[in-house]
Amino acid sequence: MADAPYKLILLRHGESEWNAKNLFTGWVDVNLTEKGEKEAVRGGELLKDAGLLPDVLHTSLQKRAIRTANLALDAADRGWIPVHRSWRLNERHYGALQGKNKAETLAEFGEEQFMTWRRSYDTPPPELADGSEFSQSDDPRYAHIPSELRPRTECLKDVGHRMLPYWYDSIVPDLAEGHTVLVAAHGNSLRALVKHLDGISDEDITGLNIPTGIPLAYELDADYNPVTKGGTYLDPEAAKAAIQAVANQGKK
Amino acid sequence: MADAPYKLILLRHGESEWNAKNLFTGWVDVNLTEKGEKEAVRGGELLKDAGLLPDVLHTSLQKRAIRTANLALDAADRGWIPVHRSWRLNERHYGALQGKNKAETLAEFGEEQFMTWRRSYDTPPPELADGSEFSQSDDPRYAHIPSELRPRTECLKDVGHRMLPYWYDSIVPDLAEGHTVLVAAHGNSLRALVKHLDGISDEDITGLNIPTGIPLAYELDADYNPVTKGGTYLDPEAAKAAIQAVANQGKK
Repeated sequence: MADAPYKLILLRHGESEWNAKNLFTGWVDVNLTEKGEKEAVRGGELLKDAGLLPDVLHTSLQKRAIRTANLALDAADRGWIPVHRSWRLNERHYGALQGKNKAETLAEFGEEQFMTWRRSYDTPPPELADGSEFSQSDDPRYAHIPSELRPRTECLKDVGHRMLPYWYDSIVPDLAEGHTVLVAAHGNSLRALVKHLDGISDEDITGLNIPTGIPLAYELDADYNPVTKGGTYLDPEAAKAAIQAVANQGKK
Repeated sequence: MADAPYKLILLRHGESEWNAKNLFTGWVDVNLTEKGEKEAVRGGELLKDAGLLPDVLHTSLQKRAIRTANLALDAADRGWIPVHRSWRLNERHYGALQGKNKAETLAEFGEEQFMTWRRSYDTPPPELADGSEFSQSDDPRYAHIPSELRPRTECLKDVGHRMLPYWYDSIVPDLAEGHTVLVAAHGNSLRALVKHLDGISDEDITGLNIPTGIPLAYELDADYNPVTKGGTYLDPEAAKAAIQAVANQGKK
């Protein structure tokens, strides 16, 4: 049994328009900012410089992750690799908080409720009504998801439940074939995946932040467990600084 | 048997760096120019304005087609649709002409030889040597193509032979499932497809030019034949002007 036969790269999308405005985004399909586009290109340059070239891409159905992947892969001259997309890699659905300002929500509901909604493992925010301007109930990209499966709000536990079938059924088979796999996704869908990979407890996961635009590389053993827990950021100094910045989000 | 059950959209990539420099490109993986990027975005806006929204994308393995598709689909808010790529949709391999200036080639070899290489249906240019700086013999994206299948030069007839299996085995099944299919490719791979669809003779195809960045929409009947021969450009006036400009290429 060879050590570390598998290579996995996780990439959180660059800054989005609503990251910049400090709004809860979830499934709302906002675009990257110019800063976010630059982060994505830089992410691709880091891959190229490290000689860590993806053979296959998996993305969510959301523009900020898809464009991050496109920009990063163009920068790494790998725009031609096969692509697979799934709603199961989407950001956590933020329920009735979608479209709300984080600082205003903090002021309105207080820090305890705010932090519960943001970071509790198993308490979702209230559901978003289908008719809301921030709902995706009429979005054609989700038309194939039966109503009982389609999220109207999610906690991180819910994200893990709907993300893991895609990990097992679509990503692991690509790893098993020897491909270097890039997963371009979101803060919480990647937190759920990292929780699974690194065996992080329900309590400890609340403290984990994944920075935008910095590739996180994992070597996995024959049973798809990380050789090094937590993986390796391709720019560790920038990752450290960015993780601190994410931790301060909502406190503007 | 319903009329026109199937919708197919062909999109030739926007202006590339080597279109702008008047060089034979073929399989050399050049990027779009800024003008080409704008053409791609405009192509997506035309799709959106026409309400002709692709459900699935097929591209070549070449950056100029892939980026055209990405930019167009982003503009049409359809960046999330499934993507399939194949070398069979690549531009015609231009053999030993790859990297050469068109005007200089015309001056060196005379108009008859020049037009034979550019437009003859069944006379390919001389082969490109594997070691040439304009060869793709070491490009990882083509590593899966056995040497006997990999082009070293092509005439339009050759392009048709290697493109049609992809049409039959990958694109037609998507049409058959009811998807609106976007094919983002190249002047000659699309000419080969249009020749097949419209039943154009070996002689008449030499006079057909497909403009860059303007979606060409076909409605196909139950047997995958065009309801209207030649299809419909989404911006017919611009297409007319651009076709004339393409016909003048090489005469700079």
